[in-house]
Amino acid sequence: MASWRVSPNLALNQLVAARQANGESIVHLGFGEARLPAFAPLVERLIAGASRNSYGPVAGGPAAREAAAGYFSRRRMPTSSDQIVLAPGSKPLLMALNLVVSGDVLIPKPAWNTYAPQAELAGKKAFGVPIPPQAGGIPDPAALRETILAARALGRDPRIVILTLPDNPTGTLATPELIREVCTIAEQEDLLIISDEIYRDVVHDPKAPFISPAELVPPRTVVTSGFSKSLALGGWRIGVARFPDGAWGNQIRDGVVSFASEVWSTLAGPMQEVAEYAFNEPPELRQRLADSARLHGAVARAVHQIMVDAGATCRPPTGAFYVYPDFEPVRNKLSLLGITDSDSLRQHILDEYGIVVLAGHLLGDDFGALRFKAATSMLYGDTAELQQLALDSADPTRLPHVRDVLTRIEEAFTKLCA
Amino acid sequence: MASWRVSPNLALNQLVAARQANGESIVHLGFGEARLPAFAPLVERLIAGASRNSYGPVAGGPAAREAAAGYFSRRRMPTSSDQIVLAPGSKPLLMALNLVVSGDVLIPKPAWNTYAPQAELAGKKAFGVPIPPQAGGIPDPAALRETILAARALGRDPRIVILTLPDNPTGTLATPELIREVCTIAEQEDLLIISDEIYRDVVHDPKAPFISPAELVPPRTVVTSGFSKSLALGGWRIGVARFPDGAWGNQIRDGVVSFASEVWSTLAGPMQEVAEYAFNEPPELRQRLADSARLHGAVARAVHQIMVDAGATCRPPTGAFYVYPDFEPVRNKLSLLGITDSDSLRQHILDEYGIVVLAGHLLGDDFGALRFKAATSMLYGDTAELQQLALDSADPTRLPHVRDVLTRIEEAFTKLCA
Repeated sequence: MASWRVSPNLALNQLVAARQANGESIVHLGFGEARLPAFAPLVERLIAGASRNSYGPVAGGPAAREAAAGYFSRRRMPTSSDQIVLAPGSKPLLMALNLVVSGDVLIPKPAWNTYAPQAELAGKKAFGVPIPPQAGGIPDPAALRETILAARALGRDPRIVILTLPDNPTGTLATPELIREVCTIAEQEDLLIISDEIYRDVVHDPKAPFISPAELVPPRTVVTSGFSKSLALGGWRIGVARFPDGAWGNQIRDGVVSFASEVWSTLAGPMQEVAEYAFNEPPELRQRLADSARLHGAVARAVHQIMVDAGATCRPPTGAFYVYPDFEPVRNKLSLLGITDSDSLRQHILDEYGIVVLAGHLLGDDFGALRFKAATSMLYGDTAELQQLALDSADPTRLPHVRDVLTRIEEAFTKLCA
Repeated sequence: MASWRVSPNLALNQLVAARQANGESIVHLGFGEARLPAFAPLVERLIAGASRNSYGPVAGGPAAREAAAGYFSRRRMPTSSDQIVLAPGSKPLLMALNLVVSGDVLIPKPAWNTYAPQAELAGKKAFGVPIPPQAGGIPDPAALRETILAARALGRDPRIVILTLPDNPTGTLATPELIREVCTIAEQEDLLIISDEIYRDVVHDPKAPFISPAELVPPRTVVTSGFSKSLALGGWRIGVARFPDGAWGNQIRDGVVSFASEVWSTLAGPMQEVAEYAFNEPPELRQRLADSARLHGAVARAVHQIMVDAGATCRPPTGAFYVYPDFEPVRNKLSLLGITDSDSLRQHILDEYGIVVLAGHLLGDDFGALRFKAATSMLYGDTAELQQLALDSADPTRLPHVRDVLTRIEEAFTKLCA
């Protein structure tokens, strides 16, 4: 029996819950949850779908798949419902892709902490490729070429590259230019692109240019998404994959559907009702998405400013609800506190300030780097009422309950780097 | 890329839907769905749980796990909530067990069509062991010993045996004596037992003796279950595993939780609310389970009688909602119709009579055998109203809409074997 560990972000979540139950005051920035109440019309759809207790088609029912096809089509990716597979989250779809498509996997470094373990579960090797200075979620093109060559020299066969657009953990969106460069390499090296676009509707600036690899190299791009982030439905488990049109895409889709049929059967019926509504994007839902993105941006920028003011470098957040600071500029100061790597930095922040972050090495980054991920969405409040207040506010960072935590974070990092 | 196929029962379901959409009159006995409306209090709990949109603990929340522990404890398996893991169906739990516990897998022959593909996905070999004459869902003890020796002689290492109590596909419950014999072998040969008890609450006779391997050899038995069958909630995807108390059990559970954290995260929050209610088994739910089991028994016995009258041998159904006839006694007659094996039998029944069954070889049985599985639950009617009528009836086989289909089946099989 191999040794097994729980996904570190979920494990951290359980640890924090236990410490809070002990009465400790913890600022939990270690979990990538959107942290907003469920939007009322979504709850209505769940209720409307409650009577769907029969097994349905493995890939999802026609209406929900048609709606998902429309969602992608409206984003310059013409899609038929045959190209759509729904699932209980995008995680199982990503796992299935790992099993269905042969070859090793290239992932950004750092990256979401599930890509590498899934590759390993599928008997593959995951090669982390450093991200460029401009943004995360994408391998630096030059480093990508080098890594492919180095992997082949080791006798490995990298055939998949995973992109995260926008990115978890850096909270940034790769530029169209970078995405074009990576797509060119994918064509030259015959790689399948898995474009994880679960944060696509959490781009902070609605006018920011977004380009999907599925627009540039459609036959070799699978797009995954879901509602856990944009609609804060992590607990409802709704994911989707869009497969390329054509023979290769059909082959991959058939493999994923086959795996699904043996492992999770189908997305729960009531959740398909929700998916149909949400993928159809009626006006009130678009407004909700826009409000959420504005809130995520405002709070992420505030935390980013705190980190930069304290002395870290940090890519300005443009999507999702994360910042990923690098304390290299203050390494000498921190070393006096015994902070010399990603883990001692995390531990010090927890012990001294009660602030929980996810250490960079758990995301595949260098252990010696002084980096972590902070999920800024955890600042919206612990109750649905406070979260709704934050969502409705024109300037959420000035709400007392948000400002108080921002102040605590500011004081902690100012003191840390003093 | 390996070749992939959709789980045959789900594929059949989609085929039937397509033919029915074409206006064909099909009697669909090929899908193991309980075919009853969702019980109203379950819908109420789903609605009550709709606001649970946050990610929760991977294994499930404390209240739902506590309820599941109570469910098992009331069945002579003392259980703490730490021994419980919830999931979107029991399928993903069975898949995780295949990956976490090393060694090859011994399964009954015939068996539910997902056990063998899951073993193969995990890189194992599944050895089918013929079932005894008395009942399915359990390997014949003598054949089990022989298969283990033969597998070892091939250099394989069988370490898991899967039992189905009561059984899909034969609709029978193994006797305590047979279960004891298999448990003894499991101890002698150091096998882990996976006891799939998803049909446990669908034993037709409430006084029938049920013994779980978890009562006999607790440290080496994992029990899986769910609500897809007993409560007809296939479309809601709620499953559970009960792990043994002790070091081995903890190790397996930790592995399953780790796999879950990378593949499906957790059971959806609203479904956990349902699970808490259903595992607590309030009186109205027990009544519903009893009513369902009575209906399943009455219709299964009627179809069993038809098969026997036509000339097949068939174990009398005592659990679940299946019959598994064997047309060996009329092989000579059938051979005149070109029926010589499991597949030609299935095809003939479909072509001549519009009756869909699941061929025995798709369940691991011998291709040359004249056997199939018929899911008798498909006779309760196509609407929630008709299904409710069947559930409420003291003699559902005399309801016009049930009797009409029974008559069509009777005429078909009488003619087939004439």
